[in-house]
Amino acid sequence: MFKAIEWVESPQEAIRLLDQTALPSVEKYIDIIETASLVDAIQRLVVRGAPALGASGAYGVALAMSEAARNNWTKDQLQEAIQSVRDARPTAVNLAWGVDQVRDLVPDGIEAVLTAAHLIAEADVANNKKLSELGADWILKKTGKDKVRVITHCNTGGLATVGWGTALGIIRELHDRGALEIVYADETRPLLQGARLTSWELKQLGIDHFVEADGAASSTILRGLVDVAIIGADRITANGDTANKVGSVALALACQRAGIPFVVAAPASTVDLDTATGDGIHIELRTDSEVHEFQGMRATPEGVKGFNPAFDVTPFDLISAIATENGVAEPATANDPRVMETVVTR
Amino acid sequence: MFKAIEWVESPQEAIRLLDQTALPSVEKYIDIIETASLVDAIQRLVVRGAPALGASGAYGVALAMSEAARNNWTKDQLQEAIQSVRDARPTAVNLAWGVDQVRDLVPDGIEAVLTAAHLIAEADVANNKKLSELGADWILKKTGKDKVRVITHCNTGGLATVGWGTALGIIRELHDRGALEIVYADETRPLLQGARLTSWELKQLGIDHFVEADGAASSTILRGLVDVAIIGADRITANGDTANKVGSVALALACQRAGIPFVVAAPASTVDLDTATGDGIHIELRTDSEVHEFQGMRATPEGVKGFNPAFDVTPFDLISAIATENGVAEPATANDPRVMETVVTR
Repeated sequence: MFKAIEWVESPQEAIRLLDQTALPSVEKYIDIIETASLVDAIQRLVVRGAPALGASGAYGVALAMSEAARNNWTKDQLQEAIQSVRDARPTAVNLAWGVDQVRDLVPDGIEAVLTAAHLIAEADVANNKKLSELGADWILKKTGKDKVRVITHCNTGGLATVGWGTALGIIRELHDRGALEIVYADETRPLLQGARLTSWELKQLGIDHFVEADGAASSTILRGLVDVAIIGADRITANGDTANKVGSVALALACQRAGIPFVVAAPASTVDLDTATGDGIHIELRTDSEVHEFQGMRATPEGVKGFNPAFDVTPFDLISAIATENGVAEPATANDPRVMETVVTR
Repeated sequence: MFKAIEWVESPQEAIRLLDQTALPSVEKYIDIIETASLVDAIQRLVVRGAPALGASGAYGVALAMSEAARNNWTKDQLQEAIQSVRDARPTAVNLAWGVDQVRDLVPDGIEAVLTAAHLIAEADVANNKKLSELGADWILKKTGKDKVRVITHCNTGGLATVGWGTALGIIRELHDRGALEIVYADETRPLLQGARLTSWELKQLGIDHFVEADGAASSTILRGLVDVAIIGADRITANGDTANKVGSVALALACQRAGIPFVVAAPASTVDLDTATGDGIHIELRTDSEVHEFQGMRATPEGVKGFNPAFDVTPFDLISAIATENGVAEPATANDPRVMETVVTR
């Protein structure tokens, strides 16, 4: 099985990334040895997905230390490099979280930082498996079905995490239990993480699925073709408001109308208790060239403007359940401004 | 200005179509002289848009007669060819309507059919202008604003009609009145009619706009970036349920949540009083290759399945207004199973 992110010692100390911009046609790995290259890789989405960004943040601190030692950086230069990793993308809280988990260990040396980073990476896989079990339990109980039909958006599998997956982790768990009938995977424009990455993972796992245009998602739900929507998260605020890939809230609105559950799957590190509601989330606005083009081929006329927010916010009252490794919160029914405290150990 | 569809006599009797599959990079016209080529052009969306399909149906009868005369077809062969045009696409009611408007004139000769077809084409432009005035009046009154910010989906302009446009016609009317601030145009996957065609028309008209991914539409509405959503229609049933390009209902759901009007713009020929509700509408399922690729470039892994419904149905209770040349119906507030009778002269 592939690894989206991994620390390697040879041929030199590096973060090895599976280049997700080249999938599904090309499967190639890139060894990153400079902090600036890591920042660039994060921004170009060579590595992406909130949990994978958590590990990227932690390993990024080790990478900066490795580069600092090689180039005799001052402490200020090192801290500046670490900060640049922390700030590489504004919406995903996990990136900053990953950096912050190991930053205090910098005076103890790179081995101490690496040990902590490895623990974070291992915990991510374990947390994903746990939240997948809890999420699958919740969904099967809630729907009362032996087999469910699922819709998902963007990519939340092994590629978006250190391993296993979040929303796609629940889908794998359902599949392993024989409780999955079919998956509808939104293609997820503009960067097609659903068409390129989710479909690639589902194919490898032998999971029966359709890829559909994002515009089809609402009617797939309203027409009764699915029993549940499951998505990941880039940031969840204290009340349960959830930032995720742009297009997610369309599924939530349709699920509410159809009366089926809308489920968010994310490790507890995605929860940002310091932000009260979704109004406090900074939504990353990416370059409009992503909208103008489809895999490098221009679609729009020259000279027109694109609008390219990378995320949207789904309000808590549209979210039936948020599955974390610590338990499942139910923001819509709880209607509690601190509902996420119950699943976060501070 | 371009013409999406036109009957020409020279160099030979033909339907001249602006090839919409080649826009915006190439502007070329195709002369269609055979019924089978017209059916193919309709199915490949060389010509598209409900009102333009109405004219295509009427001119298609003349084309079949021209071909019949050239090839000494029997009456049955002629009727079969006419029927093939009528059935070329199942969801848009206007295509069948256009055929039916002139079919009874076949015994009177091609000139009689052509005269009727020209009247239909001329009426389409006049109807679009009228419904655009009525729609703009309604929107400005309802929003109480001097200038409105609009979101639209797919293409509903001069390219989708014989001239002027429906939803885009209202946008033009607002622009001409100095009452338009900005347009957000959904790119409209899989065939990108928004990115390719609407943006091309808006650019020609000098109308300030953004192109956005379809997934961005819901949050553009929820974040308060627009005052109204305006879309076209392929079929409107007696109660106001509206079939339009897949993705339309996502805008309607978001507008309901945001408390802003969702407006449908369509000539009265789009109304199908013989169908009571949207449940009776056959939704065209197009080839999944459209989802897998854009202009021949593959996004998904080989061997996976695509799901490609071309339309969705927006329930009447999400529709604030339907603007036709005969007046504006308000399905959501009327909640009347025959609400569309008021704007249709049978």
